[in-house]
Amino acid sequence: MLIFALGFRSFMTDPFVVVGGDAAGMSAASKARREAPDREIVVFERGEWVSYGACGLPYYVKGEIDSLDELVSVTPTEFREERNIDLRTNHEVTAIEPENQVVIVDGPDGVIEQPYGELLIATGASAIVPPIDGIDLAGVYTLHDMEHGEAIKNRLDSDDSIDRVGIVGGGYVGIEMAEAFHAHGLDVHLFEMLPHVLAPFGETVGKRVAEHLREQTVSVHLDTTVEGFKGAESVTAVQTPDSTVPVDMVLVGAGVAPNTALADSAGIEIGERGAIATDEYGRTSTADVYAAGDCAEMTHTVTGEPTHVPLALTANRAGRAVGQTVAGDPTPVGDIAGTASVKAFDLQAARTGLLDETRAAEAGFDLVSRTITTRSRAGYYPGGSPIDVTLTADRSTGRVLGASMVGEEGVPKRIDTVATALHAGMTVEELESLDLSYAPPFGPTWDPVLTAGKVLSGAIEH
Amino acid sequence: MLIFALGFRSFMTDPFVVVGGDAAGMSAASKARREAPDREIVVFERGEWVSYGACGLPYYVKGEIDSLDELVSVTPTEFREERNIDLRTNHEVTAIEPENQVVIVDGPDGVIEQPYGELLIATGASAIVPPIDGIDLAGVYTLHDMEHGEAIKNRLDSDDSIDRVGIVGGGYVGIEMAEAFHAHGLDVHLFEMLPHVLAPFGETVGKRVAEHLREQTVSVHLDTTVEGFKGAESVTAVQTPDSTVPVDMVLVGAGVAPNTALADSAGIEIGERGAIATDEYGRTSTADVYAAGDCAEMTHTVTGEPTHVPLALTANRAGRAVGQTVAGDPTPVGDIAGTASVKAFDLQAARTGLLDETRAAEAGFDLVSRTITTRSRAGYYPGGSPIDVTLTADRSTGRVLGASMVGEEGVPKRIDTVATALHAGMTVEELESLDLSYAPPFGPTWDPVLTAGKVLSGAIEH
Repeated sequence: MLIFALGFRSFMTDPFVVVGGDAAGMSAASKARREAPDREIVVFERGEWVSYGACGLPYYVKGEIDSLDELVSVTPTEFREERNIDLRTNHEVTAIEPENQVVIVDGPDGVIEQPYGELLIATGASAIVPPIDGIDLAGVYTLHDMEHGEAIKNRLDSDDSIDRVGIVGGGYVGIEMAEAFHAHGLDVHLFEMLPHVLAPFGETVGKRVAEHLREQTVSVHLDTTVEGFKGAESVTAVQTPDSTVPVDMVLVGAGVAPNTALADSAGIEIGERGAIATDEYGRTSTADVYAAGDCAEMTHTVTGEPTHVPLALTANRAGRAVGQTVAGDPTPVGDIAGTASVKAFDLQAARTGLLDETRAAEAGFDLVSRTITTRSRAGYYPGGSPIDVTLTADRSTGRVLGASMVGEEGVPKRIDTVATALHAGMTVEELESLDLSYAPPFGPTWDPVLTAGKVLSGAIEH
Repeated sequence: MLIFALGFRSFMTDPFVVVGGDAAGMSAASKARREAPDREIVVFERGEWVSYGACGLPYYVKGEIDSLDELVSVTPTEFREERNIDLRTNHEVTAIEPENQVVIVDGPDGVIEQPYGELLIATGASAIVPPIDGIDLAGVYTLHDMEHGEAIKNRLDSDDSIDRVGIVGGGYVGIEMAEAFHAHGLDVHLFEMLPHVLAPFGETVGKRVAEHLREQTVSVHLDTTVEGFKGAESVTAVQTPDSTVPVDMVLVGAGVAPNTALADSAGIEIGERGAIATDEYGRTSTADVYAAGDCAEMTHTVTGEPTHVPLALTANRAGRAVGQTVAGDPTPVGDIAGTASVKAFDLQAARTGLLDETRAAEAGFDLVSRTITTRSRAGYYPGGSPIDVTLTADRSTGRVLGASMVGEEGVPKRIDTVATALHAGMTVEELESLDLSYAPPFGPTWDPVLTAGKVLSGAIEH
C-alpha cells in the first residue's frame, strides 16, 4: 500500500483524506464532493456520530429536544449514499506519516495504511478535565460529545434521588446547563473561580447574568475555586475553601482543549495558542496537510494574530473552504472576530472582538470602553426591557475593537452589526453613522449600538 | 429689527433659528445648546406638539399606548427650562428672506421679523392627500401628525357604529394601521394599487406579508386602484374598478411629501427627488441656511446620489449634525441606505439598500438577486420559523447592493448586518465571510445572511 502510494503519485491522484467527522471534517468532505464530483474522498471518524450539533446538547439534556438524532444534520448513510463519501466510523487515525503521505488507521478490521493526496486534520477539541481531587468519582460529568449528553440525560431521567447539582465553571456550558438542570427541578450550585461568569463577555454582562441566575434560584458562587469533590464512589459534595456544598451530581464546564496530539506527533507545528498553526488557506506547516475547526488556530479579525476560538460557524466555514481549496479553487478560511452569543434563561448575551484591556494592549491597542443602557424597544412601546451595550475602541485611531451586550431581546443579531464593523475596520465615528433599522416594536430610534457609538466617540474626543 | 440684524452682524452673533420643532429641529437645537452653551437658539413650531414619536401613532390608535403624551420624548417646558431653548409653539414661519437674513413669523402676538445667524429648515413632510373623488368626506383620515392620531382614536373610541374600515395603500402606515384597526375588532379592507404590499421591501416580503394579513382576516385587495369614496357627508364605501366595498371609515396611507414651499419661495434649491437639496453638512444652496429631516434630500449610501427617505433616525441624526456644525464643529449629516423595518401583526419585515433592478441600473449597477429561506433558530431547537432573505449585488463587482427579509423573529436587527456591509462597500464574498454570532436559540450555524451570501456568491461566479 505504501509502495503503491509513493510509486503512483505522479500517475494518479490519491484520495482527499479527512480525520474527524464533525463540523469541519464533514463540511470539507461535502464541499470537495460538490466541487470535484470524481475525487475519492475518505473520512475517518473514531466514534459513531458524525456531523452533529454539539451546541444543542444542553437543550437535549433540558428536555426540549427529544432525541440525539435530531442534532444530526446529515446521517452517515446520507454521506455515503447521497454524497458518495467513503465515511468510515469507528476508525481512529493513530499516526500521520507525511514523508510517506499516508495515515495509519486503527479500525474494526485491523490497522491499515491509507495514502492521501491531501489530508485534513479535523480532530476537534475535548472537554478539559481539570486535575481536581475526586474528578474521577461517579456522578462527575463533562459535556462535549453526544455520549456525554446521553449519559447526563439518562442519569437525570432514571435517577429520582438527584436533587442537587454542582456546576464548575460559568462559561457557555455552565450557564446553559444551569438552565437545563433547573428545568429538571434541581437545586443548582454554580461555581466560578473568577469574579464574574461569562468572563469573555466582560463585567457588565457577567454581573447581569449572575443576577438573573440568582433570580432563577441558581446559587452562584463567584470568586470560588473548587478544591475537590467529596464522596466514596459517587460524588456527594463540592469542596471550596469556605464550604462543603452537598451535591448528587457535578457538571464540569472548564472549557475545551484542541486535540493536537496526532498532528504534534507527526511534526506538524502547534501554534502559540496551543492549537494547530495554519495559514489563510488552512494549510499546516506540512505540505498537503490542512487543519480546520476546533483543533486549529485562526487569524483574529482585529489583531491579525493567531487565535483559538473553537466555535461551530468557524469550524463549518473553515472546513468548507478547505474542501473548496482541495477541489482546485483556493479559498481562504476567513478570519474570526470571536463573535458569540448565549442564552441564559430569559437573558441573551453576546460579544465580539476585543473587550479586555490587557489583551488589546498586547496587540498594540489603547483600549477605551464605555457601557450604556438603553431599551430594546421605543420608550413608549410596551414590553421593552433594558439592553446594556459595552463598546470598545482604540483611543488613538478610533477604530472599533469590540462589543458585548446583554438583554432580554434583540441582542444576538445586534452584536452582528459590530462584528461586521470589525471586519470592515470601521472607526467609532463610522459605526455611529450607520443607517440601522428602526421601528418602535424593535428598538429606540437610536439603536443601542449607535448610542454606544455616540458616547464612546465623545469619550475619545475629549 | 431688520436694521439691527444687518447692522450688527459683524459685532454680535444672531441666533440659531430653527423652523419646525420635531425630530430634526429639536435634535439640532439640543445639540447646538450642549455644544454652545451661550448661543441664543430660537425654534418656531407652527403646532402645539414638539419632539414626538410619530412612528408610535399606529400603536396609540391600536390602544397599546395610553396617551399621546407618552410619544413625546422631551416636553416644551423641558426644552425651555432645562435646555434654555427659546421654543415658540403656535408660531408659523411664513417667509425666509435670505438677503436680509431674517425669517417672517406669524405668531399669537402678530407678525414678527426674526434675524438669524444660521437657519435650519426642518419643516418635515405631510401625508399625501391624493385627488380621489370623495377624499373630503367625513370619516376619511390620513395619519401623520398627532392630531390625526387623536382624531382616529377618538372616533374609534366614541363611535360604536364603525364595523368596517378601508385602508388605501399597503405601505408602512397601511400595514401598521391594519393591525391597529383589527385590534378594535373591525373588518379591515386594504387596497394596494401595486401587485404587492410594502413595495420597497420587494416581492418576497410583500407576498408573505399579504398572506399573513389574510390569515389575520384582513381583506387584501392587490392590483386595485381606488377610484373614489362614496357617501353623502360621511364615507360609506370605497369604489374600485371591480366593486363597491362598504366601509364606515377610511385611512389613506399614500405616503408623504416633503414640506418644501417655504424653502422654494425663498429661492432655495429643491433637488431632483423633490425635497430640499443639501450637501454633506446639510447646507442648502443658500448661505447660512441648512435643511434636515423629512423635508431634505440625503446622499444614498450605495448610489452616492441624492435620495429622499423620510425616516426618524435620519431626521434625528441630520438635525444633531447640523446643531453640532452650527456650534462650530463641522459634522457630516451622514448618508442613508434606506434601512427600514416594520411589524405586520406577527411578522417582522426589513429592508436596506437597492432591491430594484431598474433603480440599480440607473445608478450603474447590474443587479443580481437571490432569495433563500432558512430558519430563525437551529433546526432542532423548538419554536423556530422560516426567514426569507433576498440579497442583491452588482454582477460585475460583486458589491452588495441591498437586502430584504421577512420572518416571525430575528429580522429587524439582522438587516443591520447588511446595512453595515453597505456602508463598508463590502462584496458578497466579504459578507459571506463575516464571523456572525451563533447559538441554537437564535439562529442556524450559518446565519440566514451568510446563507444568502453563499447562494448569491455562487450565482455571480457561474
